[in-house]
Amino acid sequence: MNNLHASKSISVDCVIFGFNQGGLEVLLIRDTENENKWRLPNDWLIKNESLDAVAKRVMNKLIGNSSNYVSQVKVFENLDKTNLNQTIIVGYFALINRGEYYMTAEGRKTDASWFKMKDTLELICDHHAIIDFSLNIIKEKTLYSSIIFNLLPEKFTLPELIRVYEAVLNRKLEKANFRKKILHMNVISAINQKQYGTSQRAASLYRFNFENSTEFKLNKEILNFNYQD
Amino acid sequence: MNNLHASKSISVDCVIFGFNQGGLEVLLIRDTENENKWRLPNDWLIKNESLDAVAKRVMNKLIGNSSNYVSQVKVFENLDKTNLNQTIIVGYFALINRGEYYMTAEGRKTDASWFKMKDTLELICDHHAIIDFSLNIIKEKTLYSSIIFNLLPEKFTLPELIRVYEAVLNRKLEKANFRKKILHMNVISAINQKQYGTSQRAASLYRFNFENSTEFKLNKEILNFNYQD
Repeated sequence: MNNLHASKSISVDCVIFGFNQGGLEVLLIRDTENENKWRLPNDWLIKNESLDAVAKRVMNKLIGNSSNYVSQVKVFENLDKTNLNQTIIVGYFALINRGEYYMTAEGRKTDASWFKMKDTLELICDHHAIIDFSLNIIKEKTLYSSIIFNLLPEKFTLPELIRVYEAVLNRKLEKANFRKKILHMNVISAINQKQYGTSQRAASLYRFNFENSTEFKLNKEILNFNYQD
Repeated sequence: MNNLHASKSISVDCVIFGFNQGGLEVLLIRDTENENKWRLPNDWLIKNESLDAVAKRVMNKLIGNSSNYVSQVKVFENLDKTNLNQTIIVGYFALINRGEYYMTAEGRKTDASWFKMKDTLELICDHHAIIDFSLNIIKEKTLYSSIIFNLLPEKFTLPELIRVYEAVLNRKLEKANFRKKILHMNVISAINQKQYGTSQRAASLYRFNFENSTEFKLNKEILNFNYQD
């Protein structure tokens, strides 16, 4: 049966999402073969290595850490039609709080940059498809899990939390309704501390209640959003 | 860089779920190397073939058709610790209405059988993990999509629909509440026809409204179940 076994090159491509006040962003590097194009950071699988290990290696190289929410997306095939070798790409996505990470020297060398989701860049192959597919998974998980808290710092304001939800779902939320629901679910707590360093009226800070995070889990109450439009 | 590229054997393993009155079942074949063990049906990727094509081939071989809901799950690695060759398993799951398919001659030759989810069989490697992972994806998608209608025939009764939801979610639902919600969502319609061939009082038949299936989609109303316990 061995003659049927296919040999392929396996690449792990990572969609690293970060959030800042401007919205949702993705970390891209300049393509080495065509300097006008950008690509997802990637690396090849080495014998006896796990796919998760490759994803962590890719993240470490660029932002010096990988202790975030990292998840396999799916296998993408034949994305690069110009490539004569049949390559299998295993997509991964990660969610990080941008404030906690700095670009490494290696990251700066590869011209790594954060790009807003709405910026239309020329990406190699169908890397847009891997980004879109990842974003859809995150949108879905947002309905019943605490996944997007990984984009926030430990302490955050309610307006920041709403902005994260709006950025990921790509919709405007009814703010009062959202506030009521999320507080009712008891998954965030006010920490009796105000945000500082802002010119506006200082907003109260909240933190995520890890002990109550099962509230988000399947079979429990789920966020049933009301949208403005 | 070519010396870094790993060569692996890639297997596509399929979790085929079916539903009958007894509950949710999965199609397994007897392992050829150890006749006391069972395994997921699988096949190897051939050069220039897509993973989806392998999954369809596996299903065709056993049940003569693959025009169902078929979805890639994720890559599972090193599941067979006794295997000296590093194998990558791409998991797939499929949902079929058992009434529409018959086991093929090839299926019968490989000793393929349907097993109830709660039966504890000895499976090779960690095939249980692939089944559990697939079932979790289906449970999640059930909250916001019409995925489990693929397990039902075109015409079904409300009790059948509730049994499918209960089998997949592995929980008892509040029947009156479920009935009210699903009818309110307008995703199923009564077809003015009764079930026959049953000794009980004939139940009304319904069909799924494909044109309204976006009701289930993200950003729309989602099923917010009430459970009995």
